[in-house]
Amino acid sequence: MARSQSLRHRLLEEVFRIRAVDVHSHVPAAEPFARSLRELLGYHYYTELAHSAGMSRQVIAPDEPDERMIPALLEAMAAIDNTVQYGWLVELAGELFGFQGGRLTHRNWQPLAEAVREGAARPGRAREIMDLSRIEKVFLTNAFDEDLGAIDTGLFVPCLRADALVFQMNDPAVRGALEQVSGVAVGDGKGLRGALGAVVEHFRQSGARSAAISLPPRFRAFPVAEAEFERAVQGMLRGAGPGPDEGAVLQSGILFALAGFCRDCSLPFQIMYGALRDAYAHGVPQGTDLPQAGDTLRGLLPLLNAFPEVTFCLSVLSESQAQELGSYGWILQNVVLSGHWWYANVPSYIARDLAARLQSVPKTKLIGYYSDMYKLEFGLAKFNMYRRVLAQVLAGDYVEAGLGTEQDAVQVARLLLRENALRIFTF
Amino acid sequence: MARSQSLRHRLLEEVFRIRAVDVHSHVPAAEPFARSLRELLGYHYYTELAHSAGMSRQVIAPDEPDERMIPALLEAMAAIDNTVQYGWLVELAGELFGFQGGRLTHRNWQPLAEAVREGAARPGRAREIMDLSRIEKVFLTNAFDEDLGAIDTGLFVPCLRADALVFQMNDPAVRGALEQVSGVAVGDGKGLRGALGAVVEHFRQSGARSAAISLPPRFRAFPVAEAEFERAVQGMLRGAGPGPDEGAVLQSGILFALAGFCRDCSLPFQIMYGALRDAYAHGVPQGTDLPQAGDTLRGLLPLLNAFPEVTFCLSVLSESQAQELGSYGWILQNVVLSGHWWYANVPSYIARDLAARLQSVPKTKLIGYYSDMYKLEFGLAKFNMYRRVLAQVLAGDYVEAGLGTEQDAVQVARLLLRENALRIFTF
Amino acid sequence: MARSQSLRHRLLEEVFRIRAVDVHSHVPAAEPFARSLRELLGYHYYTELAHSAGMSRQVIAPDEPDERMIPALLEAMAAIDNTVQYGWLVELAGELFGFQGGRLTHRNWQPLAEAVREGAARPGRAREIMDLSRIEKVFLTNAFDEDLGAIDTGLFVPCLRADALVFQMNDPAVRGALEQVSGVAVGDGKGLRGALGAVVEHFRQSGARSAAISLPPRFRAFPVAEAEFERAVQGMLRGAGPGPDEGAVLQSGILFALAGFCRDCSLPFQIMYGALRDAYAHGVPQGTDLPQAGDTLRGLLPLLNAFPEVTFCLSVLSESQAQELGSYGWILQNVVLSGHWWYANVPSYIARDLAARLQSVPKTKLIGYYSDMYKLEFGLAKFNMYRRVLAQVLAGDYVEAGLGTEQDAVQVARLLLRENALRIFTF
Repeated sequence: MARSQSLRHRLLEEVFRIRAVDVHSHVPAAEPFARSLRELLGYHYYTELAHSAGMSRQVIAPDEPDERMIPALLEAMAAIDNTVQYGWLVELAGELFGFQGGRLTHRNWQPLAEAVREGAARPGRAREIMDLSRIEKVFLTNAFDEDLGAIDTGLFVPCLRADALVFQMNDPAVRGALEQVSGVAVGDGKGLRGALGAVVEHFRQSGARSAAISLPPRFRAFPVAEAEFERAVQGMLRGAGPGPDEGAVLQSGILFALAGFCRDCSLPFQIMYGALRDAYAHGVPQGTDLPQAGDTLRGLLPLLNAFPEVTFCLSVLSESQAQELGSYGWILQNVVLSGHWWYANVPSYIARDLAARLQSVPKTKLIGYYSDMYKLEFGLAKFNMYRRVLAQVLAGDYVEAGLGTEQDAVQVARLLLRENALRIFTF
Repeated sequence: MARSQSLRHRLLEEVFRIRAVDVHSHVPAAEPFARSLRELLGYHYYTELAHSAGMSRQVIAPDEPDERMIPALLEAMAAIDNTVQYGWLVELAGELFGFQGGRLTHRNWQPLAEAVREGAARPGRAREIMDLSRIEKVFLTNAFDEDLGAIDTGLFVPCLRADALVFQMNDPAVRGALEQVSGVAVGDGKGLRGALGAVVEHFRQSGARSAAISLPPRFRAFPVAEAEFERAVQGMLRGAGPGPDEGAVLQSGILFALAGFCRDCSLPFQIMYGALRDAYAHGVPQGTDLPQAGDTLRGLLPLLNAFPEVTFCLSVLSESQAQELGSYGWILQNVVLSGHWWYANVPSYIARDLAARLQSVPKTKLIGYYSDMYKLEFGLAKFNMYRRVLAQVLAGDYVEAGLGTEQDAVQVARLLLRENALRIFTF
Repeated sequence: MARSQSLRHRLLEEVFRIRAVDVHSHVPAAEPFARSLRELLGYHYYTELAHSAGMSRQVIAPDEPDERMIPALLEAMAAIDNTVQYGWLVELAGELFGFQGGRLTHRNWQPLAEAVREGAARPGRAREIMDLSRIEKVFLTNAFDEDLGAIDTGLFVPCLRADALVFQMNDPAVRGALEQVSGVAVGDGKGLRGALGAVVEHFRQSGARSAAISLPPRFRAFPVAEAEFERAVQGMLRGAGPGPDEGAVLQSGILFALAGFCRDCSLPFQIMYGALRDAYAHGVPQGTDLPQAGDTLRGLLPLLNAFPEVTFCLSVLSESQAQELGSYGWILQNVVLSGHWWYANVPSYIARDLAARLQSVPKTKLIGYYSDMYKLEFGLAKFNMYRRVLAQVLAGDYVEAGLGTEQDAVQVARLLLRENALRIFTF
């Protein structure tokens, strides 16, 4: 035990030395870190868990002043101080803001709030947070019509978020924005494809290294014939909205077109599969989506089979698909397993999923982790959580299981945290 | 290791000190404990496992005398002595009846049978068993037309079992019993709703603290318009039986009505989701139901969304829904996670489900365990099994994972075993 | 810890002493072991994982000479040296061919290739490999029209592979072969049933101890009335191919007929459930199938219920059905749980599935493991992997969990590795 504990500790030290690449976040390039404690506490994990534990949504209404909102939210959060999400907050508060103590309360929040304000005012704060987090690069998720010019590409990597293009093309405002950013008129299927291609090319030229989309449970991707696509586009343009079949044709047609442009531009495509949107009618903002057990990735096979040259980085939301995802990465050359997403981003789930991946999927096809964060501060705590699980799994399910030496384990950790991302996204 | 083992042992001692509340059982108030060893061995776990291992159903026929049935059943049970269910029997026999030895055989059963008879004759035996089990209160599951007057509410808490009301209203005998107990004529939809309301109110006045129902896989709950409900009720009353669609309308209409009365009477609603009834054609009594993998809780969302004021205590049967259930408790304010039910009530499943719950769901929303027992004796062994898993998970996945101190862990254990139940069911 | 480690070690020693029975393999009786290193490396695990990690399929084209193919494949396999499958290769190379070192490379493969050739030339090599593997008997999977006369039944046990009979009866060549081997004309439903019965009886007389079939996800078995079966057979014989409904009728009708003949001949029926065939369009040979999450065994219940006298040895491919499978074995007398198949044959999955089985299913109904191998050499490494997991789970989830003593654990290991197979397949 002494020996195996010290194996864990040595691996933990090595894992903590690796500068990670974070391939998926929602950090806004213009405001990448929190200006206030309120912004940190506004992360949906805290508001949704506090609300779930009984807090009224009124507590966090935008017009509630900090002096009322923060103590009330912290009081409600006493009921969630068992969770790993609460642990993230305590850890980042300590590491980034010098907060001492295990629990945030109405008595100790004000010095922390002051420290957040002070930190935010320091020049080079984004780089400072990333250095303290041992994170080298953070991928963004950019709207197709976002201005990419202002992004500090020393820190950040742009990434095309394709959700609106696939799911909101019906909205004339979206089409208008697409025409404007692409300079291509969307008057028929060919025009729509051209506009999509121009957007992808524009992203590539602006340094984007990936496209990304979130697909709902039961999504079925299928190849769409030219004439069928044209009919769906014409239906959409007539403005009555496509019928349900036409809607699916339109979505799959656009998705396949985007995948084709990813191929042409050598961009990997990140797919987050399985969020049932707006499932909970009474939730806080961003706290209304759920996983759906019992689903399968089979519906994505036509897409994966149609584009063998495109690397698809897949994440699933439902734990009942964890092994299915692993099997896809095991045999499909163009499928990479990526991180542990949202409801599956809990140490006990990560540990088991990671052990199985390490034991059965090529080590070059595993992107260990991404933060999915909205503010840079959370990268520190989330990656630290992952680093601890990684060290523990490498010790128990890899070295002690006889699959490799301690040195091999450190090399695997480098692949998972950093080198696979660098290679796959071709820096 | 020495240190972590002693952490486990200290937590185990603390966990064993907590007086638990058992929120779901099938104990009959009039005969809450076994009068004979045969009654203990008649628990479906033993008969179904022994039958599964090859025993003929004839062995346990009601007319077989104890002297033949018990040795034959015990002989068959040698094939299941690896199971935790067998372990329950040995543990309760030792703790409650002074049985010594690790296995029950045709050679040692008679003194145990005598001890069971003697114990059953002792005054205050129910309280005695519960004290030895460190269980303070045991919830019952009462038929809607059961006499609640005779229940010893110092020990037991009545609870309305809603299954017959939702699934057997077609049966004129059920409707007759409903009219009798409610004093309301079921001549139309309004009458049916009135009768249901009267039953719920009657239960509340008799000290009931909950309603409970078991819903089958693929059950889909949906709101039913007044006129639609009326049509289904009229179809039912005409006696030809409703068509399949009308059946679903009737069931959802009644279920939503009951949820509304739970809201009006401040009663939590316990939902056990996912038992496929009568799946195995050759099973022993109560040994014919199965879980169904691949299902989702999505079908319950309309109900959960329609009654935000009702606390739904959810249990699932299929392990593939374990994470989905956790996610529901994570964001839905009115969803509480309750115990580890039936086929999921196995230490290795409990350990993982519990670890994830502790790491991601508010600690105030977890009802750690309930016995689901038919006789009080099993509460001791089942809760002891849970207490051991709880101590182990708190040590490894909570304290050692850095989510809280040892003192925090003991407080979490109190919430899970006792205090959450007391608060949620508002004693 | 010292104590619990020595418990693990003692159990490991005992588990390694047991001579196992391997109830399912694809070993060809005429060429049961590899003649060359190329044959070992040609196992689909290596080609599919190497291809998945980026290797071109051209590398392993049949006309590529060893001197080019082997170093290139080994180079690609550097990316999979983390996997347990890679570990199998290193272990068997060491144990059976004296290979030293942890990794196979372009520099060290030639002496190994020579050792494989030398070993293959030694008389009694099959028995030698099996002795070194501590495997006593290996079941084969024989085509219905295979010559069973040449099989060395001192080493091997024939087994009827039923896939072609159920799924390819439409093919006139299959019907022709069936008529030839059975001596029965397939001119109607009765003829088809007679031919099937003759095949099963022929297998039984040739020493076969089992039938086996692989069923795809969503397969639904249902009893077929005589007239309905006749219509489907006539449709098939007319040669236009049956419609989709008739196809399902034909498949279920044949499957039920085969189960009936298994009953008559006292043959257990091994069912491997859940492989989605040809799912990946770009895979290497035998590297194109996937599991499908979200499925259920419910579709097999009509078959399991219709033949209570037939022992069905079930394996599932999708981890989301692991608990469902356990529950079936828990209550269905005629269901035995068999091994850990393919994508679920990974230590971290095996450990959890095994722990739950040991805690909740009669110990007499568990066939611990089978190799599913194509060449005898892999039996050593696969069974050794299982033996290690078994010892670890018996220590932690059985002895330390209080379910039995160390001696009980060794007895359970004997049942799982050997005695249950001997009893179930009635040697």
